[in-house]
Order: sequence, then C-alpha cells, then structure tokens
Amino acid sequence: MKNNYQQIISSIYSEIVSGENLGEIPNYISELANISDHKFGVAFLDLNNNSFGKGDFQEKFSIQSISKVFSLILVYKNLGEKLWKRVDVEPSGNAFNSLVQLEADNGIPRNPFINAGALVICDIMLEIFENPKNEMLNFIREISQHENINFNTKVASSEEKNGFRNAAMCNYMKSFGNIKNKPEDVLDLYYHICSIEMTCENLSKSCLFLANGGKNPKNNETILSSSKTKRINAIMLTCGFYDESGEFSFRVGLPGKSGVGGGIVALFPYHYCITVWSPKLNLKGNSFRGMKFLEEFTTQTGESIF
Amino acid sequence: MKNNYQQIISSIYSEIVSGENLGEIPNYISELANISDHKFGVAFLDLNNNSFGKGDFQEKFSIQSISKVFSLILVYKNLGEKLWKRVDVEPSGNAFNSLVQLEADNGIPRNPFINAGALVICDIMLEIFENPKNEMLNFIREISQHENINFNTKVASSEEKNGFRNAAMCNYMKSFGNIKNKPEDVLDLYYHICSIEMTCENLSKSCLFLANGGKNPKNNETILSSSKTKRINAIMLTCGFYDESGEFSFRVGLPGKSGVGGGIVALFPYHYCITVWSPKLNLKGNSFRGMKFLEEFTTQTGESIF
Amino acid sequence: MKNNYQQIISSIYSEIVSGENLGEIPNYISELANISDHKFGVAFLDLNNNSFGKGDFQEKFSIQSISKVFSLILVYKNLGEKLWKRVDVEPSGNAFNSLVQLEADNGIPRNPFINAGALVICDIMLEIFENPKNEMLNFIREISQHENINFNTKVASSEEKNGFRNAAMCNYMKSFGNIKNKPEDVLDLYYHICSIEMTCENLSKSCLFLANGGKNPKNNETILSSSKTKRINAIMLTCGFYDESGEFSFRVGLPGKSGVGGGIVALFPYHYCITVWSPKLNLKGNSFRGMKFLEEFTTQTGESIF
Amino acid sequence: MKNNYQQIISSIYSEIVSGENLGEIPNYISELANISDHKFGVAFLDLNNNSFGKGDFQEKFSIQSISKVFSLILVYKNLGEKLWKRVDVEPSGNAFNSLVQLEADNGIPRNPFINAGALVICDIMLEIFENPKNEMLNFIREISQHENINFNTKVASSEEKNGFRNAAMCNYMKSFGNIKNKPEDVLDLYYHICSIEMTCENLSKSCLFLANGGKNPKNNETILSSSKTKRINAIMLTCGFYDESGEFSFRVGLPGKSGVGGGIVALFPYHYCITVWSPKLNLKGNSFRGMKFLEEFTTQTGESIF
Repeated sequence: MKNNYQQIISSIYSEIVSGENLGEIPNYISELANISDHKFGVAFLDLNNNSFGKGDFQEKFSIQSISKVFSLILVYKNLGEKLWKRVDVEPSGNAFNSLVQLEADNGIPRNPFINAGALVICDIMLEIFENPKNEMLNFIREISQHENINFNTKVASSEEKNGFRNAAMCNYMKSFGNIKNKPEDVLDLYYHICSIEMTCENLSKSCLFLANGGKNPKNNETILSSSKTKRINAIMLTCGFYDESGEFSFRVGLPGKSGVGGGIVALFPYHYCITVWSPKLNLKGNSFRGMKFLEEFTTQTGESIF
Repeated sequence: MKNNYQQIISSIYSEIVSGENLGEIPNYISELANISDHKFGVAFLDLNNNSFGKGDFQEKFSIQSISKVFSLILVYKNLGEKLWKRVDVEPSGNAFNSLVQLEADNGIPRNPFINAGALVICDIMLEIFENPKNEMLNFIREISQHENINFNTKVASSEEKNGFRNAAMCNYMKSFGNIKNKPEDVLDLYYHICSIEMTCENLSKSCLFLANGGKNPKNNETILSSSKTKRINAIMLTCGFYDESGEFSFRVGLPGKSGVGGGIVALFPYHYCITVWSPKLNLKGNSFRGMKFLEEFTTQTGESIF
Repeated sequence: MKNNYQQIISSIYSEIVSGENLGEIPNYISELANISDHKFGVAFLDLNNNSFGKGDFQEKFSIQSISKVFSLILVYKNLGEKLWKRVDVEPSGNAFNSLVQLEADNGIPRNPFINAGALVICDIMLEIFENPKNEMLNFIREISQHENINFNTKVASSEEKNGFRNAAMCNYMKSFGNIKNKPEDVLDLYYHICSIEMTCENLSKSCLFLANGGKNPKNNETILSSSKTKRINAIMLTCGFYDESGEFSFRVGLPGKSGVGGGIVALFPYHYCITVWSPKLNLKGNSFRGMKFLEEFTTQTGESIF
Repeated sequence: MKNNYQQIISSIYSEIVSGENLGEIPNYISELANISDHKFGVAFLDLNNNSFGKGDFQEKFSIQSISKVFSLILVYKNLGEKLWKRVDVEPSGNAFNSLVQLEADNGIPRNPFINAGALVICDIMLEIFENPKNEMLNFIREISQHENINFNTKVASSEEKNGFRNAAMCNYMKSFGNIKNKPEDVLDLYYHICSIEMTCENLSKSCLFLANGGKNPKNNETILSSSKTKRINAIMLTCGFYDESGEFSFRVGLPGKSGVGGGIVALFPYHYCITVWSPKLNLKGNSFRGMKFLEEFTTQTGESIF
C-alpha cells in the first residue's frame, strides 16, 4: 500500500470517537429510534485484498437508502439505457423528499437516489422480475458473498406505517403515468429494500466491484459492464448525499451513498471501498461522524478522484 | 502514453465533423451571433508535455462562463474557505439563470458557476482587489503563459445591453445583503470577465495546473494548494454544466466547464487537460459537438475519474 | 323586479346557444366524458319568489366541485371558527391541484375550495359525524327542498379509479398531520360528495339562503348565521373559480362556485341566485358558456356586488 | 342614515385606541421609520354627503401602495382593456414582492397591486403620458378636490436607495420584454407615486367616486365608466391586501387597498368610503389597527358587499 491506510484509519477513529457526536437519530422510524448513538464502525477493503475494521464494523445496521444503489444496479443490468426515460441523472436542488420538482418535471424524478427515483426503480422491478424481493436478496447475497442478509420486516412495517410522504410521491408519479403498478405494491417493495441489514464489512465487500470496473474482485467475472459501472459511480458522486452531494464531493471527493440508518459507503475507483457507520445524522440527513471520518480520511491519505 | 490519444482524437474529430451539427448559436449576444457554426477545434495537453491539436484549436473564441473557473480560483486563493459563506457548493436543480432558488436561500447562490454565484465572486473581487480587471488578466496571462489575452469590450457591451436578467439577479442578491458594491460595478466586471477570448490551446494550458494538484507543470510552483485544487475540480464536476452537470458526469466522467461561446474544458486529474470548441449549443446551453466529442473520448480511452 | 331578468336571460341564452361552444369536456372521468356538449341550462330564483328557467335547467348533472360549498357550510356550522386552523381562506396562485403550495405551507391548504382544502373538510366530517355521507345528503335535501338528491356511485368510482393526484395530496397532508383519518376513507367520502347530481333549479334553490343572510327564504329559519354566510360568500368570490377567481370577480362580480361538470352557481346577496350549466370547459376548468352567460348577465342587468 | 355610522365609529375608535397596538413600523424606509406609532385616524364620507372624522384624520401620511389604485385607474382610463395583456387580475399566492411567480408567468405580473404589477403600470404611464408625474398629481388633485397634494421627494429617495428588490423585479420583467422603458425611469416614477402624502379625509374623498359607479359625487360627471369602476373594485377586493386579501374579504367584506404607511381605504359601493390610518403593521404588511377597525365596523353596521 502506498498509504498506510490501517494506521490512518485507527488514528482518525480514535480522534473522532473521543470528539463530539452531534446530530440526531431520526425518530420517524420507531424501530430505529432506540439504537445506541455510540455505535461507530469502519470497514476498509482494497483490491489487493487488504482489509481492516474498527469498532462496530461487524454489527448489522439498517442500510436504508444505501440499498438504492443495489436496486438501481439490478434494474440497470436488466433494462439498460432505456431506464433513463423513467428517471433522470441530475442532482436535485431540493430536499430529498420534495414534490415540487416532480410537478415541474411531469413526474420524472431528478435521479434514482431521491425517494421518488427509487420508487420508480421499484416499480420497474415489479415489471421485470417475477419475485423482485428474492432477486434483490439474491443479488446482495452474491456480491457480498454472504448468505445471511435479509429484510427486517419490523423496520419495513414501521416505516410503511408513517410513510405518507412516500405514498404521496408514489401516487403523484402514478398520476403522471410514471408508476405502472399499484402504489401499495411499489411501496411495499420499497420499504422492504430499505430495511435490508448489513454490517460495514458486508457493505464494503458488496461495493468493491464498483471500484473494480464492474468485475468481481474474487474471480474477475463481470457483474456490471465497465461503462455502466462508471455511470453508477458518477451518479453516486453527484446525487449520493441528498442535498449535501456537492459538499461531500467537495470535502471528500469520492463517489458514495449514505442512508438514514447512519451508514455511508464510499469508494476510490481501482483502489478501495470503505464503509462508515454512526447513527446520529446532521441536518441534511447524513451521518455526522461518517462525513467527518471520510473527509479526514481523504485529506490524510491525499487521495481522491480529483 | 498508455493511450494513443492523438489517434483517438483524430478519429473522433473526423467522425464528428462529418456528422450532424445540431443545436443553435445563442442570439442574445449580438457580437457572437454571427460566428460560423462550422468552427470546431480540439486541444489536448498532458503532464508529460504531449500536446495535440485539431481544427480551429488556435483560433480565439469567447470563453464566456469558462472564465468563472478563473475568477473563482483567484478569489479562493485570496479569501480562503470563508468564501463559502457567500456562495454554496451544491448543484442547482434549476436552469442556470433562475431566481427562484435565490428566493428560497435568502440570496446565497447554490454554487459559483451559476450566474448568481459568479456575480458574488465579482463582488468579492471588487472588495479585495484595487484593480480587479487587471488582476484577472494578469492571472490568466500567467497560467496560460500567454501575454496576448484580453477582454473583448464589444462583446462585454453587447451582453451588458441586454443583460436585464443578470441585473435582476444582482439587485435581488443586493436586497438580501449578499452584494456589497454597486450592482452596475459588479455587472461591468462580470461582463468583462465573460468576454475574455482564448484559443483551445490557451485554455488547455491554463487549466493544466488543475490536473497537477495545483502546481504549475512548467516549474512545479504552487498556483493553488492541492486541497483547494481538489475542491475546484469537485465543483467543476458537480456544477460545471448548468442543468446538465449530472449528465456530463454520467457520460464523460471528468471535471469540466462549459461556456455559451461553445467551449468546454475538461481535465483528468494527474493526467491531462482537453478543450473542445464548437459554437452550436444544445437545449441545456452546452456545445452539442463538444459534449459528443468528450463522451466519445472518455469512452474510447476507457479513462475517467470513475 | 327592477330588472326584467326573464327577458335578459332569454335574450342572452338565445345569443349564446347560437354562438360558438369552445372548450373541452374533461376526459379523466369516464362516466362524464360522454355527456352531450349541447346541454345548456339556466335557472334563476330571487327572494321575491320569482323564478325562471331556460333549456336543460331541470336535467340533473354532476355538480362536482360545487359540492365543496355544501360540505364547507356543513362543517363550518358545526365546528365554527376553529375550522380555519386546518385550512386558510386565501386565493391560490397555482392551479387547483398543485402540491407546491402545500409544501410551502406545511400541509395547510390555501382555501377550502381547492381539492386539498376540500379533502381536509372531508377529514373533519369523518371526525365530527357518525355518518357523514348521510349528513351531507340530508343537508342538501333540506336546503334544496328536494328528497331525490343522491350520490352517483358510478361517477364516484370512476373518479376514484384515476384519482392518484388526490391520493397524493391526501397522503401528503397526512404526512404533515393535517389529515387525521385513513386517506382511503377521506378519499371515498370526497368522491361521493363530488358525485352528487342536481339540476340547475335544485342548485339555485339550495343556495338561495346564501343570498338571504343565511336564512331559509321559505320560513325565515336560520340555516347559517349572517356573519358565517357573509364569510362563505367572501370565500366564493375570492376562491370559487380555481385560478380564474380574479377574472370571474372582475368580469361577473358575484360570489359563485364552478364544477368540472360544467355547472356554475352565483348569487347576488339579498337579491337572487342563478345557476348555469354547459359541459365544455375553458383552459382554467370553468364552463365556457357559463362564464360567458354570467358576464353578459351582470353587464346587462347592471347589477353586481361592486 | 340607516346606520348610526358616527356613533359606531366613535365607539370602535375608543375601544381600539385603549387596546393593544401590535405590529411593527417597517424600518426599511428611513423617512417613515420615526413616525409616532400612536397616530390613529379615521375618515368616513358617504354619498349623502355625511362625513365624520376621528383622531388624526386630517394629518398627512405616506399613502404608499394605496397610490397603486390611482395609477391603475389613470392608465385604465386611457388604455382600456388592452391593459390586461401586460398585467393579469388574479390574486397572488405569494408574498407581495415575490419573483417566483414572474418566472412561472414569463414576466406578466399576477395583478396591478403587487409591486411588479405597479411597475408595469408605471412603465405604461411613461409610454402614454408626456409628463406622467404631473398627470398623476393632477388626477389626484382633481378627484380629492384638493390642490395641496404632492410627492414627498425625501421619502421617494429614501425608498429608491434601498429598493434593490424592486430594481430586481423591474430588470427581470424587462428581460421578458414586459418593461419598455429604462428600468431607472420606471423605478423613479414608481417611488414618486408611492411617496404621495394625503390625509384620511383626502383619501375618502378621492375614492368616493368608486362607490358612485365612477361618477363624481359632486357634479355627477363620469370619472371612470361604471363597468371599469366595477372592475377596479373587484380587483381591490381580490388583490388589495397583499397575501391577506382573502382574509380581508372574509373578515371585512369590502373592496379596499392598504399601504405600508399604515393607511387602508375601503368602500361600500353605492354607499360610502372610509379610510383608517395607524402606522404599525401586522406580519402580512397591513395596518394592525386598521384591519381591526374595519372588521368591527362592518360587523357592527351589519353591512358589507356579501
């Protein structure tokens, strides 16, 4: 390794764990509200098979919106470029759950990582797969090389119960003709996918192929073409952090994706993948310590895509 | 060179020059409206001093919004991170001249590459420099290693005469207190900077330091710190192409900046800088052939930041 | 009568029936799409018991949004002024089905005559009445002095089947806490109320108390207090015609309410009530011939509230 | 008089003058910021020549936006209905100085009483009058039967100095082609008209013709046709109180117009005109005591247009 990643990770971890832990755990998902706010894990994995973990990196957490990367890839693999007729690839200037933009754009979401876009992806899954829930789990189990990855149906129900804004968006897009299935079926699939639980270690392993031109690092088999992989990484960079995507690109400089469960996965193409988890979120909905860790990490390693 | 860049450029150039030339030359700047739509130039330059040009790459054109990169760098060098109190770094979900966003964000532009943001940058230049026009020219002459770079005052006047939307934005931001100088002075400086004329060759040379960690490739002297350079590149990627930034990132995968004069400069960090010029613009205001050329270029070289 | 209303009505009716019949019958409610576009009825009734009808004034049609006046009155009678914590009384600058405004105002609809506002009224009906559908029918039967007024359940189902935008709004307001019941129950009540069928004659009779300070013209019993009656009339004037309310006030100068079934009811306080029905709608969703008739009517009588 | 207006006015005046005086005097017009917040005047005048004043009803104050009624009438008299191609008559759902709406409607203001609309009216005055300032003063002097009515040039300058938002709007509309003259000339006329000073007594006298079908109550000469008068009154009702027009219509039930100087003029067609002045403004920019007084007045007299 050019960089002594392990030492840098340990040092930043120590510094952050003893520093302030600002932000809030979101309380709108009752099943997640009681998680300990001291949880903090980091898992690093590179293409030379160097791996390193710190803290709670082997504890499962709710990956929430990070799952949007996996459902997008699954649909993109199957549908190809015509996918982009149903969802755009532009960053969204509004908060992640805004309906204003949908009104202006006739029901076409700005990108697949805002909730509206992810709902369209779920709608497409219902069109192209006989059993989309199984397809999703099978795909994640394959890329994570881990059989024991599942939905947390309690979390899914908990979110669905208060998911009126997502129900609004789904119905709204259906009024524009950009949802083909029943809104309740789309929402059910959406909440299940959001409820997937994984560890930091699982996540880094699952995303490493995105840092490898789309090829499985174990056996060099193609999971996603190199052109599509580049495009997924590009969307992660411009749209992966709600209305803080520009800030993440500016401070960290890596493609990545965050979830309201407090996880962030980021990758340096042709080098490594890294996952951080800490449940307290900043005002934009991204992990406070996760953002801080990754900014320090690319600063101290001196490596980023820019 | 890993890639035979010269051959790839020649081949794509030939293909595009014989293909369709869609889009329109914008007619709101009378001085630019009569330019020949057949103009087409490409200039490549890498850190190993390989350079290669095609077509009209040594003909000056109005760089327009590409100049926003240079004024931003000049202010960022001098003011440092407190600059970001006056302008944000998030992509804008609206058209590049929208006032809606300013209303929602109390006069803080989303990023320094939309017109509103560039006006704030000009306002700061008036605060920190005694003679901001000279500072600007001197800086560009230095980084381009070319003495003969100037404003085109006819173009500046031509734009100013019809620049009511920019005048609206400038006054609007002043009503929020985010413009400190007289709107007419800010606008005068803005239009002069937009009117700078350079060749593709000049532009590639001027921006090469951004692909070199901020250091002058000739003498290794620091023009901009490596951290600031990374951040400028990040903003170019997320915000450099108006409301088509996500699309450019997705298709091309390089930091870059376009102008309504038909120019696009893009760079591959630690490798090369490339400039394309063709005056006809697509619906989003970016050079039709320029976008096409660069998409082909990163596809055929197989290189991008992702 | 100061004015020879009967003669004026006949004359305008003849003129309009032989003139152009522009606009469209909305096709999103399949049950209404096939109605003959030649239907045209007018029913006048004043406080001196003068009544006069022309054309299809005794044929039932779907009153659609005109029913929002009745549900509002029913809730206002029962809940009083605290109703206005849940819905505002300001005209809406957007199209009648816009969600943008709800986002800006945290789920409080601008007024009770846009769909969002009427949904909140239905939600309150579910809270305060054991059987809101019966309450509604009983109230209209009472004020129209007509037992045979009913929902058209086919129309209600037809609308509900394609009512994704209303479902979106209802869920969206629920996400802000401004809907207390299940969205599906609120929507079911809403579509039933919209589906009520009445004749022009029924409608003029039903609304005459609004021109009589809230008192039943037959027996002088108070249906609604004079202060509340004034306020209902005021809301009809400022908000009764979607995004054409200013235009109606400007051209006609009477409080009124339109529906997409092609009906318009209008009243001159302390004088008369008049209903016009013609199914083709202008671009703003109001009856083309209805608007024209009423403009001519107040012009020729020289009477309006202004 | 059916009502004992004098006694009702005296009684309400006493009650309000001894009650709370909430709100703020706006501080953005320095010349107006130091006015005593205890000023409180009422002037009533009816078509039977009954007149009655209370408190500071003979003290001049800055009528500000109330002047928009006079400039609108002057232009409407001269230009007729084609005026409405340049400005609409719909209430505005946004705050009175919003630019969002102008973006959506391509530079056509929603109505002539928001600032944008009044700027268009000034632009038209510059087109049709050789000396629009004189025309304005002459017209007001004529209808008020008072020679000593003037601009307050200090107030005009004071507003112009901080009028960046109006300058923004004016330039913005010019970018859409809906301002024909130089923005600085339009703004200069606008601020002069806003700075007109009148007493409550003057204002009631000036507007009484609007309660008389457009005829001068003194000599029965036509100032404005009855049709145009009705339309002016209609616009006052739907648009006269910024984003509180619906509320004023709902509570008071009279056409009227307010200004940030704390004045409100209201009229009951074919009966009377009444003006109230008290400088402290509520959150929507209307006189706190003025609104309260007029609500009490129409409640106690039991008279309104509804």
